[in-house]
Amino acid sequence: MTVDVDFGDDGLVPAVAQDAETGEVLMLAYVSPEALERTRETGYAHYYSRSRDELWKKGGSSGHLQSIQEVRVDCDADTLLYLVDQEGGACHTGHRSCFYRTVDGDEVGEKVFDPETVYE
Amino acid sequence: MTVDVDFGDDGLVPAVAQDAETGEVLMLAYVSPEALERTRETGYAHYYSRSRDELWKKGGSSGHLQSIQEVRVDCDADTLLYLVDQEGGACHTGHRSCFYRTVDGDEVGEKVFDPETVYE
Repeated sequence: MTVDVDFGDDGLVPAVAQDAETGEVLMLAYVSPEALERTRETGYAHYYSRSRDELWKKGGSSGHLQSIQEVRVDCDADTLLYLVDQEGGACHTGHRSCFYRTVDGDEVGEKVFDPETVYE
Repeated sequence: MTVDVDFGDDGLVPAVAQDAETGEVLMLAYVSPEALERTRETGYAHYYSRSRDELWKKGGSSGHLQSIQEVRVDCDADTLLYLVDQEGGACHTGHRSCFYRTVDGDEVGEKVFDPETVYE
């Protein structure tokens, strides 16, 4: 790895997941050094869950995996961009993207699965 | 504002800026309640600089303003997505996007201005 990612004081960087084909921004989650390593080794997006305090393979329980096309890093090397092929939907609410609402509360994103079926 | 944004313990949320037309992810920065208020009032992207510890109008010195088309919020209401029309380039390096490198160090993003001219 040529770029030395700056994981900062808490050992995590934010990672934006973007649909490699459509450009839709799907979600933001946090990544530890180990999560980045697993992402690069396996070709599937891994993150670090701050609430569960554990490494997390996206889609591990739902099947909604993110196949990695490219990992980019920003100018300060403290944020990642995962370009992915998203199976199903990225959001636990059933939406394709977690950004399915405007800040005014208007629903603008597409719902692609029923979370009660997937996470039962 | 209908959605109650969760600014967390440090009073900041990450905001992803995306080109509203091309879908390119331009940058990630942090937003305070006041920065969000100013963004909504003025129609131009405002952030909060953690290093300078101050409210910051994007493009205030460079002229590379971000005109806001829409502000979205994610499922947990702790991350924002700014859909913007970007003047010039988002990155202080002169690139259109701050994500101009792969994590392997390959330059993949377009350079659109000379930072020495803009920030002299």
